[in-house]
Amino acid sequence: MYNFNEAEYRTNLTRQIDTFGQGVELAKEITKDGYSNIFFIAVGGTVAMMMHFEEIAKQLTTIPVYAEQAGEIVLTGHRHLNRDSLIIMGSKSGDTKETVAAAKWIKDNYGCRIASMVISKESPLGRLTDYQLPLVVFKGVEYEYLSVFGLFYGLLHLHNDFPQINAFEEQLKKLPDLLVAAQAKFDAPAAKIAARYYQSPYLMWIGGGELWGEIYLFTMCILEEMQWMKTKSIKSSEFFHGTLELVDENTDVFLVKSVGAARALDDRVERFLNQYGKNVVIIDIKDYMGDIDDAFAPILAPVFSTAVLNGRLSKYFEKNTGHDLNMRRYYRQFDY
Amino acid sequence: MYNFNEAEYRTNLTRQIDTFGQGVELAKEITKDGYSNIFFIAVGGTVAMMMHFEEIAKQLTTIPVYAEQAGEIVLTGHRHLNRDSLIIMGSKSGDTKETVAAAKWIKDNYGCRIASMVISKESPLGRLTDYQLPLVVFKGVEYEYLSVFGLFYGLLHLHNDFPQINAFEEQLKKLPDLLVAAQAKFDAPAAKIAARYYQSPYLMWIGGGELWGEIYLFTMCILEEMQWMKTKSIKSSEFFHGTLELVDENTDVFLVKSVGAARALDDRVERFLNQYGKNVVIIDIKDYMGDIDDAFAPILAPVFSTAVLNGRLSKYFEKNTGHDLNMRRYYRQFDY
Repeated sequence: MYNFNEAEYRTNLTRQIDTFGQGVELAKEITKDGYSNIFFIAVGGTVAMMMHFEEIAKQLTTIPVYAEQAGEIVLTGHRHLNRDSLIIMGSKSGDTKETVAAAKWIKDNYGCRIASMVISKESPLGRLTDYQLPLVVFKGVEYEYLSVFGLFYGLLHLHNDFPQINAFEEQLKKLPDLLVAAQAKFDAPAAKIAARYYQSPYLMWIGGGELWGEIYLFTMCILEEMQWMKTKSIKSSEFFHGTLELVDENTDVFLVKSVGAARALDDRVERFLNQYGKNVVIIDIKDYMGDIDDAFAPILAPVFSTAVLNGRLSKYFEKNTGHDLNMRRYYRQFDY
Repeated sequence: MYNFNEAEYRTNLTRQIDTFGQGVELAKEITKDGYSNIFFIAVGGTVAMMMHFEEIAKQLTTIPVYAEQAGEIVLTGHRHLNRDSLIIMGSKSGDTKETVAAAKWIKDNYGCRIASMVISKESPLGRLTDYQLPLVVFKGVEYEYLSVFGLFYGLLHLHNDFPQINAFEEQLKKLPDLLVAAQAKFDAPAAKIAARYYQSPYLMWIGGGELWGEIYLFTMCILEEMQWMKTKSIKSSEFFHGTLELVDENTDVFLVKSVGAARALDDRVERFLNQYGKNVVIIDIKDYMGDIDDAFAPILAPVFSTAVLNGRLSKYFEKNTGHDLNMRRYYRQFDY
C-alpha cells in the first residue's frame, strides 16, 4: 500500500489497544467516587471524534453526556456543569489554546475531575489533567477513539448499560488485522477516487448516525485544512431539507454509509443519488469491517471509517494534488 | 422596500405577538402536570430554529432540553425520552413526513404530550398534537420563534430561571416597529451584497452562539434549497480548526455577528477576515436591533437575523439570479 508502514501501524495499534484496561480501571475509580454527568470538551477534530460518543450515549445510557466546544463553553457556561461532572478532554499536542483555557476555567470555577487524551502529562493540558488517557501516537484518529473506549465503556458497564464489555475487549484484539485489511481493500478504490476528484471545485459529503463526527472531521480537518478543498458536510437526515437541490450532473457527491440504527437514512440518500446524481461516490463502511460482530459494529464503525478515509483517501488526494498534508497557510503559523 | 408589504407584515407580527400569553398559559398547565425534560423534534429549517432554544437553555436553565432530528430519533431512540417528556414539534405545513412519523412513534411508544407549532389543527401533525402553538402565517421564520416564546419562557419562568418574563413580553411589543426598521436599514446593503455575490461559486457563512441555527438555516434552506447556491456553514468557534485555510483572495466569506455571550468568538473571526480576506461581508445583528434591552438581545437576535437575512437578502438574491425562491427541482416534487 502507498505510504503505509504496516509493521509500525500494527505495533502502535496493539500498544493502544493494550491500554483499554487502564481506562476501565479509571472508570472503576471514578464510579466509586461518583459523578453527576459527563462532559466531552474539545475543539475541531477532537470534538468531532467525541460526537460519536455523544451519539452512542443517546442510544445506550441514561447518564447525561454532552459534547461541547471548548471555546464556547468558557463564554456561555452550561447550567448542567457542576462540581461532580466528569470532564473528558483531548488535545494531542496538549497545547490547543481553547482546550487548555477551558480546562483551566473548569478547574478554577468548578474543580471538576478532568480525564484527558493527551500524549504528554507535561503538556499544558496534561498538567491540568487528573487522569491521563494514554495516546501512543500523534497521527491517526483511530488511536483517539481507542484512547477513550476503556474509560467510556467502563463507565457504561458499571452503570449497567454495557454488560458486554469483555466481549468488546476481545473484539478490539481483531483490529490490527482488520484495519490493515480494510485499508488494503480500500487502497485501489481510494487511488481511483482521488485521481478522479482531486481538482473538484466543491465536494458534498453526506453521512450520519455514529459516523457524523467522521464526516464533519474529514471534510473540515482533512479536505479543507490539509488540502484546501471546498466542501459541504451534511447529515443524511438533513440532506433532503435543502442541500439535495444542489445535486445535478456537475455536482460531486460522496456518501459514507453508517452501519448502526440510522443506516436507513443513508439508504434513502443512496437511492436518491443513484437516480439523480452523475458524479457519486458511495463508501459503505460495512464493506470494510470484516467479521466484526453486529453488536459492536456501530461503536467500531468510526475506527474503520477513519482508517479508510484518513488513512487511505487523504494520502491519495495528497499524491494527486501535490499539496503536502502538513502544509498550512494560517493554522498555527502565527497568532490570530 | 423591494417586495415588502409593510402593513401586512405589521398586522401579522402583532397577531403573532398577541399569542404569547396563550403559550404562557400552556406552560402553567404543563408545569402543574409536571414534566421530566423537553425534547424539541423537527427537521430542516424547523429544527434549525429550535437549535436556538437548545443554546439558550444551556445558559439559563437546568431543565434538560434536547433538540433532535425527527428522522433520526425514530431510528436510534433516545434513552432520556420517557412518558413524562414534553415534546415540542413543528411543521408549518403540518405534513412533513419525518415529523409526522416521529409524532406518531412518540405517541405509540411513550404517550408523551406534544406541543406543536402548526398552522392547522386538522393537518396530520395537528391531529397528533395536544397543545397547538399558534402560527399565524406560513412564511417568515420570525413568526416561528415567536410561536415558541410563550411556552418556552413560560416554562423557564415557572422553573425560576426567567423572572423577567413580563419585561420580556413588553419588549415583544416593540418588534413590529423595530423589525420594519431593521429591514429598512438593511435594504440597501442587502441589494448591494446580492448584486455583488449572486454568481459566487461558493459562499462561506460563519456565525455562532444563539445565531448558529440561523446560519445553518439560511445556508441550507434558503441559499441551497431556494437559490441552488453552494455554501459552507461553519461555527465561529470551529472556523479556526480547518475551514480558515480556504480563505484566500478569491473566497467569498460572510460573517454574521451574534450579540450574546459567544460574541467574542465572532470578534476573533472578524479580526482574521479583516486581515486575510478580500471578499468579506460582515453583518452585525447588533446594528439592526434598535433599542432592544441588552438583557433580551441574545434571545431576540435570531428574530432580527431572520428578518434581515430571509426578509431582505434572500429577496435580493432572487431578484439578481432570476431564480424564483419557490422553485424546486426535487423537494416535494415527487416521492424519493
